[in-house]
Parts: sequence; C-alpha cells; structure tokens
Amino acid sequence: MTNLNDVARNAHVSKMTVSRVINHPERVSDELKELVEKAIQDVGYEPNRMAKALVNKRHYVIRFLLLEDVTTVEPNYAKLLIHIANYLQESGYTLEISTDLAASTNNIDGMIVSGWRQADLEGLSLVTVPIILYGVAPENSRLSYVDVHNKQGIEMATQYMIDRGYQDIWYIGIAIDLPFAKQRALGYRSVMNKYGMSQKVFATENHAHSADILMTNMVTSIQSNTGFVCATDRIALGVVRSLTRIYEVPTDFGVIGFDGVFIDQISSPQLTTIRQPLALIAKNLVKEIVNRVESDEENTKIEVNITPELIIRDSTQ
Amino acid sequence: MTNLNDVARNAHVSKMTVSRVINHPERVSDELKELVEKAIQDVGYEPNRMAKALVNKRHYVIRFLLLEDVTTVEPNYAKLLIHIANYLQESGYTLEISTDLAASTNNIDGMIVSGWRQADLEGLSLVTVPIILYGVAPENSRLSYVDVHNKQGIEMATQYMIDRGYQDIWYIGIAIDLPFAKQRALGYRSVMNKYGMSQKVFATENHAHSADILMTNMVTSIQSNTGFVCATDRIALGVVRSLTRIYEVPTDFGVIGFDGVFIDQISSPQLTTIRQPLALIAKNLVKEIVNRVESDEENTKIEVNITPELIIRDSTQ
Repeated sequence: MTNLNDVARNAHVSKMTVSRVINHPERVSDELKELVEKAIQDVGYEPNRMAKALVNKRHYVIRFLLLEDVTTVEPNYAKLLIHIANYLQESGYTLEISTDLAASTNNIDGMIVSGWRQADLEGLSLVTVPIILYGVAPENSRLSYVDVHNKQGIEMATQYMIDRGYQDIWYIGIAIDLPFAKQRALGYRSVMNKYGMSQKVFATENHAHSADILMTNMVTSIQSNTGFVCATDRIALGVVRSLTRIYEVPTDFGVIGFDGVFIDQISSPQLTTIRQPLALIAKNLVKEIVNRVESDEENTKIEVNITPELIIRDSTQ
Repeated sequence: MTNLNDVARNAHVSKMTVSRVINHPERVSDELKELVEKAIQDVGYEPNRMAKALVNKRHYVIRFLLLEDVTTVEPNYAKLLIHIANYLQESGYTLEISTDLAASTNNIDGMIVSGWRQADLEGLSLVTVPIILYGVAPENSRLSYVDVHNKQGIEMATQYMIDRGYQDIWYIGIAIDLPFAKQRALGYRSVMNKYGMSQKVFATENHAHSADILMTNMVTSIQSNTGFVCATDRIALGVVRSLTRIYEVPTDFGVIGFDGVFIDQISSPQLTTIRQPLALIAKNLVKEIVNRVESDEENTKIEVNITPELIIRDSTQ
C-alpha cells in the first residue's frame, strides 16, 4: 500500500507539500499541482478513506436500514442493495447494512430506510443524521422519499387491460396500511372512473397462497373475459394459479402484476407486469442522501416518484 | 455527539488519562478504570470507529464481493447479506458491498466473495487482504470457503426418496462447471451405489423454464412412482410444473429440491427441499473472515461444510 511518503519521494517535495496539494489545491500553484498529481498517478496512491474522513469530519458511510423482518424480505432487496452499493461507491461512500433502528449513528453520515411501517416513523423523525425513505411517506410526514410512482403504475396496468378488451376489470389489492397500497388502489379507481366502469376492489395479504384462496372462493362467480389488476406479482401469481385450475390464462382471463422482479418470470404463464425500475430507484436514493449529507440545504421534504415500465408477457391477451 | 473531553470532564481527569484507559487498560489501576468507565456510561460516549481504526491500523470494514451478474442473483442473497451485516456489526465491523473484483482494497480489512466462477480464482488468489469464499472451492485452490455441505444435502434428499418408497430415482442436476454442482451429483451417486439402484443423471440450466423443457421431452417415458431429486429449487419448480400438466404430484411422482429459500414456498404444490441454513452460513463466513483479519495465523486453507436441513412439504409422498 503506497502512502504520502512514496508520493513525496517521487515528486521530490516534502510530505507536507503533498498533503497541502491534496487537501487545499486552491492554495498551491498549477505547476506544483501537476507535479504532485503526476506523482500520485505514478505510484498509484489512493488517499486513505479514513484520513480523508477525519479531515472532512465525514465518515463516508451511508447506512441501509431495513426494518422488515428478514424472513419475509422480497427478492428485489438483493438487487436494490447491490445497485445502491455501486452508486454509493461511485460517490465515494460505503454502504453499511443494519436492521436496528436504535443503532448508534455516530459513525455514519446518513440513512436510506426501507421496510418501515407507520409505527417506525416517529422514531425515524428523531434521527439526527439525514434520512431518505424508500417508499412513499404519509402526507403529514416531513420525511423525504424515493419510490416507484405507485398510482401511475396501476393506472398503466388498468388502462392496458381496457385496451386489450377485457370487459370487466377487478382490482386485487394488498391489505396493508401503508401509503403505497392506497396509491395503487387509487390508480385503479381513477382509470375506472374515467371510463365509467364499475369498480370491484378486493384486498389480500401479499402472499400467492392468500390470493389463491381469495380467488378460489370467488372463481365460480366470475364472468369470462375479466381482467385482474393485481397490486403485486405475488398476488398475481396466486390469482393465476387459482384460475388455471379451471380456466385458461390468458384465453379466458387476463392477469397483470406489479414489481417485475423475479416472481413474474417464474410464474407459468409468465406475468405481464408493471416493473419497478430498481436501478433508477437506487440511483435516486443515493443522489438524494448524498445531496443531503453534502449540502447545507434547508431540510425540505423531497418526493421522488419514478415512472414504472409495462412489461408485456403471457398472462394477458 | 459526546467526545473524550466530556468523559474527562465528568471523571475529573485529563483527556490523556481517558485515552490511556481506553487504549491501554492493562496499564492503569482498577480504580481509575472504574472511574473512567462510569464517566463513559454517564455521558454516553462511544469510541469513534475512525479514531479507533487509525490507532489499530484497521478499517473495521469487510467487503462482500458479489461476482454474479446482478440480473441473475438469487432471492437468497438479500437474506444472506442481512445476516452477514448483523453478525459483522456484532463483531464491530461494517459490511461494504461491491461487484468489482479490481476495486482497491486500501480501505478494507478482508473480503467475503460470492458468485465467483472458475475464471475468477486466479485473480482472487492475488488479493492482498484476507479472503473467504462463499461456495466450495476446487481442491487445488488454496482459498478457504464456507458452504452448505452439498454432497450430504443430496444424500439426504436421495435417501428420503428411497425411504418414501419411490422405485426409480432420477437426478436432475445443474449444468455448471463448479465444485458445488459436482458435489451434489456425487451425493446422488453415493446413495444409489449403496442400494445398487440404477442411476439416471441429467443436467439443465438453473431455470424453471429449462427444467420444464427437459422434463416435457422425457415425460412420456417415465414410469409412475419415480422420484426426482433436483439440484436446486428452481429446477424442481420446472420439473413440478412439467409433471403437473399431465400427472399428479405427489400422487404419481415425487419431487425434491435444494435451497429452501422462497421458491420452495411459492411453488404449487410447495416443495419438499433441502434447506441451506443461511444464518449459520453467514455466521461462519463472518467468524472465519474476522478470525483471519484479527489473528496472525498461518494462512491455512479452511473448509467449512454446514449440514443442511430436510424440509418436508407437499411435493413428495
């Protein structure tokens, strides 16, 4: 591991001079800067993150705080985390992962918070480092967030079902008291209202098994050529499974999901779905938290809603 | 944020004394130690990780290096990462995530490496910080690893199929040139050899769709009461899907998978499987890497093979 001494020796200047060039480039001549920068490249020196951190009174560490139970985490977390890690690395930050809301914030600069529930928000509002939530926050909360545009996503799904000629369209929602679930339901309602179509809204736990049971109870009362807009791919998987015991999908019925991460692909038939752009969500989470850490801006609430993508596969006509 | 000054003031001693108590407790009296420790608790002081790191010439950062393509990562990574993060936190280390084998190791103490292929091993053997692999290494490699006991897992699966009375037992392996795949195939062979049963070994890509196609091509030539031992749950999902188009599972045929993370539960019927104990794997990865970082031991090869668990569900009789 090369250090300042190696750079100083290569440039034939003192270690103090090298340090001044690195930390206060505005105070040295262009010639000196060039000389030292060339030496830094020659010896392959990388300023030590810790030394830099001590100088800047910054840790260059962002915590990803996951408040959902580890036994129920969705497959999309792995992808999201790796995208976040890569974007943070580009900005010179390290990603730390924690599941403990009460863990000390002495050694981090900020937090990205995921899997939170309503009851966590009070505790989160007391945290003294900058925070950004993954997932739309309640309107009365002062916390900033990045999320997929939930309402728009289900609007796209509902509109697609209408465009494909399904005559009756049901919404199978997710029974959870969080803003994103309300936003998704609103997306269905707004499109159905626009077309003056009658609304049929249901809700189930976010498990294929629960959705399967719900649908199996109703399956004999469904008219053919009905389209099912589902709040998640897990729910869509259960709906498809229930329907395909008796009918054909997509010949008799259409199903569309939401998430587009893994489950849509292992369903049979594969699911038409609204895909969350995870890389873009990660990029925006990193951009917002680094901004908050590095700027001395007012602590204004920022709401980033990212447009999802319609993925057409085999569960719709 | 409290600092050494606050502790010193509270204990009515100098800052230097506090520092000596923290860094060299063996050099101070028990009375002084008690006094300062009480002050530390009173003011809620936490030694700064960076300051501690500079003193110990250690970074307290372990990198998780993921060498698989982010688009193909398995759902078990999220769980594994969170377990690793929590165990590292208990040991006073931060988890950093990276996907770049060539990234500088100047600011980390060691690496846990996952998703590697044969071609990565040469590069990995040149890394100058301690390394532990997740996944059994080739015999000729000097790299240490932690993995589920692959051979034992498939032995358990094959034995279970024999115990349940399946008369013909096939092995649907994974077509990848890595030691874990060979180990799993060996598990099938060793049990079949023991019982003098004839062996039928196939291999497919690790996708439900590929396994489905393979089975659909063979489905008419299978005798009833055959048991399928599958190298992964993804493959088992495809096998179940193919069989259930014509037959009943588990009435006509039995299927057992391997992994026990998520896919087993969303299959219908749910899969009997060999579960990878992810928390235990994470615990051992952390134990081994922290050991290597903190001890000045010889760089001996360590091989940790963790016994998996048979989970009985609905895809076997």
